[in-house]
Amino acid sequence: MNIKPLGDRVLVKPMKEQEVKKGGIIIPDTAKEKPQEGKVISVGTGKLDDSGKVIPFNVKKGDKVLLPKYGGTEVKIDDEDYQIVREEDILAVIE
Amino acid sequence: MNIKPLGDRVLVKPMKEQEVKKGGIIIPDTAKEKPQEGKVISVGTGKLDDSGKVIPFNVKKGDKVLLPKYGGTEVKIDDEDYQIVREEDILAVIE
Amino acid sequence: MNIKPLGDRVLVKPMKEQEVKKGGIIIPDTAKEKPQEGKVISVGTGKLDDSGKVIPFNVKKGDKVLLPKYGGTEVKIDDEDYQIVREEDILAVIE
Amino acid sequence: MNIKPLGDRVLVKPMKEQEVKKGGIIIPDTAKEKPQEGKVISVGTGKLDDSGKVIPFNVKKGDKVLLPKYGGTEVKIDDEDYQIVREEDILAVIE
Amino acid sequence: MNIKPLGDRVLVKPMKEQEVKKGGIIIPDTAKEKPQEGKVISVGTGKLDDSGKVIPFNVKKGDKVLLPKYGGTEVKIDDEDYQIVREEDILAVIE
Amino acid sequence: MNIKPLGDRVLVKPMKEQEVKKGGIIIPDTAKEKPQEGKVISVGTGKLDDSGKVIPFNVKKGDKVLLPKYGGTEVKIDDEDYQIVREEDILAVIE
Amino acid sequence: MNIKPLGDRVLVKPMKEQEVKKGGIIIPDTAKEKPQEGKVISVGTGKLDDSGKVIPFNVKKGDKVLLPKYGGTEVKIDDEDYQIVREEDILAVIE
Repeated sequence: MNIKPLGDRVLVKPMKEQEVKKGGIIIPDTAKEKPQEGKVISVGTGKLDDSGKVIPFNVKKGDKVLLPKYGGTEVKIDDEDYQIVREEDILAVIE
Repeated sequence: MNIKPLGDRVLVKPMKEQEVKKGGIIIPDTAKEKPQEGKVISVGTGKLDDSGKVIPFNVKKGDKVLLPKYGGTEVKIDDEDYQIVREEDILAVIE
Repeated sequence: MNIKPLGDRVLVKPMKEQEVKKGGIIIPDTAKEKPQEGKVISVGTGKLDDSGKVIPFNVKKGDKVLLPKYGGTEVKIDDEDYQIVREEDILAVIE
Repeated sequence: MNIKPLGDRVLVKPMKEQEVKKGGIIIPDTAKEKPQEGKVISVGTGKLDDSGKVIPFNVKKGDKVLLPKYGGTEVKIDDEDYQIVREEDILAVIE
Repeated sequence: MNIKPLGDRVLVKPMKEQEVKKGGIIIPDTAKEKPQEGKVISVGTGKLDDSGKVIPFNVKKGDKVLLPKYGGTEVKIDDEDYQIVREEDILAVIE
Repeated sequence: MNIKPLGDRVLVKPMKEQEVKKGGIIIPDTAKEKPQEGKVISVGTGKLDDSGKVIPFNVKKGDKVLLPKYGGTEVKIDDEDYQIVREEDILAVIE
Repeated sequence: MNIKPLGDRVLVKPMKEQEVKKGGIIIPDTAKEKPQEGKVISVGTGKLDDSGKVIPFNVKKGDKVLLPKYGGTEVKIDDEDYQIVREEDILAVIE
């Protein structure tokens, strides 16, 4: 089963806490309830600029990203948790 | 009887729960009240960009799509439930 | 007496319940208080796009349309009830 | 004394109830408190589009118009009541 | 002491009640607390349109104008009360 | 120590009450808590218009300006109070 | 571990209070809870203007900046506190 996000949306697999390396990034206070690091599974069909051209994504499949505390939609695919977030809401790429 | 959605709206037939395959996509917590997977029945007349050209749809008749928890309007046609949603609110296409 | 809606507004005659054919479209829960199907009586003077051209209407006189639950303004003309709605708020054309 | 509305505003003289012809337009429920039909006394200096050109008015002096229930500013000139409304808020022209 | 308003702002001297001519314009209900007629003392440096050109003012020094009930900032200059309002909030010019 | 405001921000030194000349500008009611006149210390890096050009400031270093009652951020530099305000929020230049 | 902010975001290391030089900038009242001076660690991938060109940043790595009281997201990297803020929310560069 394959998910193709629409527009500027990105499908992200949040990392489980045990996957977060020591010394990794943690959002204070809420780290227990909602993992903040995730891996990009697929990017959307793209958003158009005013002249009708697709704006390229700044993230790509496999990127480790920093997700905002709020926003995005949680979905369950084959019993695994994922998030669909708009790219503009992703804070940063972790290199 | 035929329904032609206006603008960037899309007519979607929400899938009944028994139609959702095992291992399918389920939105946590609300899956019981409102099916989240649906099939596109027809797309709208299209939305215009700033230069007056119709923006093409990213979904087409027959696509299986992932609907947001909120938004859209429920309509009953020939005793069947449908939803009219704006394309920009559809989260993803399920391939 | 003739009514010419301004801008992207449309004058619609809501269909009385007895006029709604069996197997017709009904918006759940509110169907009793407010008919949801209507017939377009006249379209407005048109809305201009950024370059000053009139955007054509997607509905025309005589079209049967699906109205949203909320929005629009009810007016009484010669003792008959009508609604003035913006075209962008009309959900679909019923063919 | 002469009033020149600014921008896309229009000066309207609301019709007194006795002036509303039999079979005329009445907005349900509020017709007693606020006349809904009015006559255009003068149009404004005009609103500019993005390229700096004045957008022409769709109403002109003498037009009978249908006013929205809310919005507009009531002014008293020489002991007569008037309303200053933006043209985009006028619902329709009554012909 | 001279005041040059910035952008699309206008400096207005509200007329004292005794200055309002008989048969003049009065906003119902609030006329006692806040004069609604005023005289333009100076216009601002101007607002730029999208192409960077200054949009000309529709009011000029000396114009008698009709002020909205709300909005604007009251300032006291040399013990006299003035208002600084955006031109788009001025309702009309009184000729 | 030097402060370079970013974008359309301006660094302003509010005038102490004893510095406000007799017959000067006073905002009624709040004049005691927050000085409304100030002197421009430095202007920002500038805001870009739609075509990417920097929009010139209407205020310059040394200008005496009229500040709005609300808005802006108070900062303390070398034990002196300053305000950082967006230029579009400055009401007027006092000449 | 390296953090690349997305869009117009900037990664900032807030300065500890003991690092703030005497006579430095302090935001009144809240200085105890949240340092207001910070050092830019890295700038984002950039925001696009309407014509699709990247808008250059006004801050660069190493700049000392003045942060707003609110806004931004706190992140912890290798046990150190950082903030991710949009450049448009940074008040000023401290030179």
